[in-house]
Amino acid sequence: MPILGQNQYGKAENRVVKITRDGATHHIKDLNVSVSLGGDMDEVHYSGSNASVLPTDTTKNTVYAFAKEHGIESAEQFGIHLARHFVTSQDAIHRARIRIEEYAWERIEHSGEGAHSFVRAGQETRLAQITFDGTSWEVISGLKDLVVMNSTDSEFWGYVKDKYTTLPEAYDRILATQVSGRWRFNWTDDAQETPDWDESYAQTRRHTLQAFAETYSLSLQQTLYQMGSRIIDHRGEIDEVRFSLPNKHHFLVDLEPFGLKNATPDGAVYYAADRPYGLIEATILRDGCEARIPVDLSNL
Amino acid sequence: MPILGQNQYGKAENRVVKITRDGATHHIKDLNVSVSLGGDMDEVHYSGSNASVLPTDTTKNTVYAFAKEHGIESAEQFGIHLARHFVTSQDAIHRARIRIEEYAWERIEHSGEGAHSFVRAGQETRLAQITFDGTSWEVISGLKDLVVMNSTDSEFWGYVKDKYTTLPEAYDRILATQVSGRWRFNWTDDAQETPDWDESYAQTRRHTLQAFAETYSLSLQQTLYQMGSRIIDHRGEIDEVRFSLPNKHHFLVDLEPFGLKNATPDGAVYYAADRPYGLIEATILRDGCEARIPVDLSNL
Amino acid sequence: MPILGQNQYGKAENRVVKITRDGATHHIKDLNVSVSLGGDMDEVHYSGSNASVLPTDTTKNTVYAFAKEHGIESAEQFGIHLARHFVTSQDAIHRARIRIEEYAWERIEHSGEGAHSFVRAGQETRLAQITFDGTSWEVISGLKDLVVMNSTDSEFWGYVKDKYTTLPEAYDRILATQVSGRWRFNWTDDAQETPDWDESYAQTRRHTLQAFAETYSLSLQQTLYQMGSRIIDHRGEIDEVRFSLPNKHHFLVDLEPFGLKNATPDGAVYYAADRPYGLIEATILRDGCEARIPVDLSNL
Amino acid sequence: MPILGQNQYGKAENRVVKITRDGATHHIKDLNVSVSLGGDMDEVHYSGSNASVLPTDTTKNTVYAFAKEHGIESAEQFGIHLARHFVTSQDAIHRARIRIEEYAWERIEHSGEGAHSFVRAGQETRLAQITFDGTSWEVISGLKDLVVMNSTDSEFWGYVKDKYTTLPEAYDRILATQVSGRWRFNWTDDAQETPDWDESYAQTRRHTLQAFAETYSLSLQQTLYQMGSRIIDHRGEIDEVRFSLPNKHHFLVDLEPFGLKNATPDGAVYYAADRPYGLIEATILRDGCEARIPVDLSNL
Repeated sequence: MPILGQNQYGKAENRVVKITRDGATHHIKDLNVSVSLGGDMDEVHYSGSNASVLPTDTTKNTVYAFAKEHGIESAEQFGIHLARHFVTSQDAIHRARIRIEEYAWERIEHSGEGAHSFVRAGQETRLAQITFDGTSWEVISGLKDLVVMNSTDSEFWGYVKDKYTTLPEAYDRILATQVSGRWRFNWTDDAQETPDWDESYAQTRRHTLQAFAETYSLSLQQTLYQMGSRIIDHRGEIDEVRFSLPNKHHFLVDLEPFGLKNATPDGAVYYAADRPYGLIEATILRDGCEARIPVDLSNL
Repeated sequence: MPILGQNQYGKAENRVVKITRDGATHHIKDLNVSVSLGGDMDEVHYSGSNASVLPTDTTKNTVYAFAKEHGIESAEQFGIHLARHFVTSQDAIHRARIRIEEYAWERIEHSGEGAHSFVRAGQETRLAQITFDGTSWEVISGLKDLVVMNSTDSEFWGYVKDKYTTLPEAYDRILATQVSGRWRFNWTDDAQETPDWDESYAQTRRHTLQAFAETYSLSLQQTLYQMGSRIIDHRGEIDEVRFSLPNKHHFLVDLEPFGLKNATPDGAVYYAADRPYGLIEATILRDGCEARIPVDLSNL
Repeated sequence: MPILGQNQYGKAENRVVKITRDGATHHIKDLNVSVSLGGDMDEVHYSGSNASVLPTDTTKNTVYAFAKEHGIESAEQFGIHLARHFVTSQDAIHRARIRIEEYAWERIEHSGEGAHSFVRAGQETRLAQITFDGTSWEVISGLKDLVVMNSTDSEFWGYVKDKYTTLPEAYDRILATQVSGRWRFNWTDDAQETPDWDESYAQTRRHTLQAFAETYSLSLQQTLYQMGSRIIDHRGEIDEVRFSLPNKHHFLVDLEPFGLKNATPDGAVYYAADRPYGLIEATILRDGCEARIPVDLSNL
Repeated sequence: MPILGQNQYGKAENRVVKITRDGATHHIKDLNVSVSLGGDMDEVHYSGSNASVLPTDTTKNTVYAFAKEHGIESAEQFGIHLARHFVTSQDAIHRARIRIEEYAWERIEHSGEGAHSFVRAGQETRLAQITFDGTSWEVISGLKDLVVMNSTDSEFWGYVKDKYTTLPEAYDRILATQVSGRWRFNWTDDAQETPDWDESYAQTRRHTLQAFAETYSLSLQQTLYQMGSRIIDHRGEIDEVRFSLPNKHHFLVDLEPFGLKNATPDGAVYYAADRPYGLIEATILRDGCEARIPVDLSNL
């Protein structure tokens, strides 16, 4: 008989918005929460008996109820509450993974009273993944869709040429990418003090941007390593970083047929291509630490 | 024989990035330019003769060449150059419409040298549409995907009830929308002085946000009118505004089954719904002016 | 004071699935219905009074209730029921437009009992738009996302060359497009017999595909005209057709650097490009008829 | 110093269309090919030296050249050619993974000559992933976006109730999902005879659909297991299957406020919800076989 292997279930993409009122000053937390549970679930697969199954609808209700009962201090803290609840309250559930996307909002400056008007920031999406097995925690935070560009200080040459190589070497090119990154915390145990999740995110994001900006790049791999190693160097709470960086190609347009020289000291015109794109992915680890972030990041 | 009616053709979505270098300080213009031409084009439809057809590939080349030759001062100015070129240089072309999407970038703050590192702003997309028929101009600017929210100061009651009405009246709700707006300039003639397109955009965007924030709303229609009329009142260069505002519903979650009261003085938890959504659309005109912006905005 | 121009409101994207049971044989109708209403709506914009406003939530309820009460014979018939209801039951509503997307399902062939298992067809989306002003009807049907390709029998040459033209002439190319089409019926009055909407759709779709396949094409404009004129010629119930045809470019890859000739009698390898793309749009009319389909189709 | 962990690079989303001509009868292969390579790549990350780096541009060229030189018999066979080439021709490359999406086309029936007109099938996307380390092969095939529905023969009851459970039990519901599946072949060695990849795909797809249709479902987990075990039982070339099945909820609309009973013997009206959705994922293995398909499928 075919054997049941790894399995998990839950309610994905619960869109929860929490408004906290401090008089006329309001605060927003805007999350997309996905719950994934595992445990003694053989029977529901083999026979369809739901005797061990907490309905996904219940997990949805729990997300909303917890947002009221416990508030949303940070995505990570909220995920920890949820994961602990599912594992400790249900005998059949031995593992809970909470994935959260967070959308940032800024205040609209205006001359009216109160502070309860917002515009969505629209830049990166913040990510958090919290996993609990009843004993130890794994927290992976990250971001996606942060689009960055250096308009110079990037070269690409000295590479292998085989019979299919036609690319000319480049000594001054645009380097642009849409950053997708994840970082794993060394907080694993309730006995440890938890990191300041929001401060950690802000600083890690800052290091990511600055390492990108400050690296004179001979390859996107080099830039990636600089981004990751700077995080490891500066953020003691993080042991592992993984980036997935599409090389968003900007090709110099050939304007010679029109009697124009494109790359001149005062700038140039580029064609921003869609597909195909280079895709550079790597993990950077604190020395002695184990890699645990999945190598394909798209669905963290 | 079936008759040929309105027709237009061109190259859509030319992705052009212009870097301008001022020493180590660089500037970006990042556009998506669509060209649409019309004129004496019966024959290509009836017989397939291309004798009057400037290829769409040529219109693409022109976009890139003009970005180098003329630079990109603003989306509107760039579109004016292009539209004028197609209509005045080709006998068969009597009308050109240039649609432009513009993506904003911010500088990355860092301690390295130079100023050539950028992060995409990610908020709204700026829009411009320039139409020229050889004699007069029509310029419509706008924006899309600007997501805003008031977490209070919105009510909805006193509406018509019929046999299909179940909605309870609301005296304090979230009002959120994804603003799509267009505004038409009264600049139509080369003899007039052109507006300062970038300043006009910045101010119109500001008025849009502030009118949204400062309106105590009894209906999204009322908020829309306030947004539009504030632009007409403050921006003499604009005669017509149209907004398309999806009502991004945020429903109070019923937490009573869990023994929780949701809407309390310190805030509440909402479910952000995807579909369906209310959709409110209207045009606001300067008194005495004609409406020319299409009533369905999705593809301006 | 700024003047209110055209305005409309309603609930967009009501996803309604109707299962009809004929014993163990079930039938599906799977629609996405958007309601848009207009009429005496000045006050809600100017003062926020909702005294004339039927809530968008009520229009949503009406869609679901009508699906049960009246069934869904066809998208067009369903839209006619809805539009008539809103205009005739509410004094303030003078115009109703119902837009419907319909998704097709096929039966899964299997050896079990019953006929209630389906797989979504996944090809084009069928479209219908019904507008009623209390007196006369306008019905526009159509489709989108029907992707077609001729791998030969397409040429492109004899076009205008200006200083920005670099495109070589082509005597055998791929012609591919993603068909977006709309057609307007001459049924406008309840006194006329209504067309057989489903039969009309099936035949119009067939003519579209066959005209595309059977036209030896010298330009995409010519193919478009053949598609439209064939519908006008064969479908007496239709007076106007509009197509929006992106030219989905398939470029011959240059394999000469690798010592390979690409276009050989046994075939060739192409690069399917994303952006930019040619965009060809035109209306074809029955002689003597007026054009009423909007020239920009993206949101019909 | 921070340590480099797993890393991979290549060109993603090479869109290759191969037309094969057999006189006036043409055949299409339409693929999206992503190349990912790994090996001795430390230096490019640490110092930016590209001395071991075959450019991603070269891998793109190779995809197109191989489509001409070797043809595209099947996605799997094409991927095997490519993976073998990269690993055996470059000293520094020790592992190649080729991921392919394949889009199906059907012939347009028409009365013209030749057979070179096609319409894109539009249903599921076929998937293949081929990995080679110089010694052994791993081939995982699959599909995504195959949307299926049973309009009856599905129940859900007998589940765990906790304080957050409000879901009523269901004895007759719609079961709908968008199938994402992967299956791993036990072909790992050039010495083995390769499977008939296309026949294997066709049969595995058929079993997937039929198992979905023929299972009277007490839970989506049970249906998933039936789908996977049927493949293991019937397809000896496959040792492992994983499915990711979103529960596309179709909720019975409450029509009682309008005096209507919804679920009647002749059918019912449902609201097709977007988010949140249940998400059920599991692996089914041939007894004694190891699980190797990643548990999170979104980017296979």
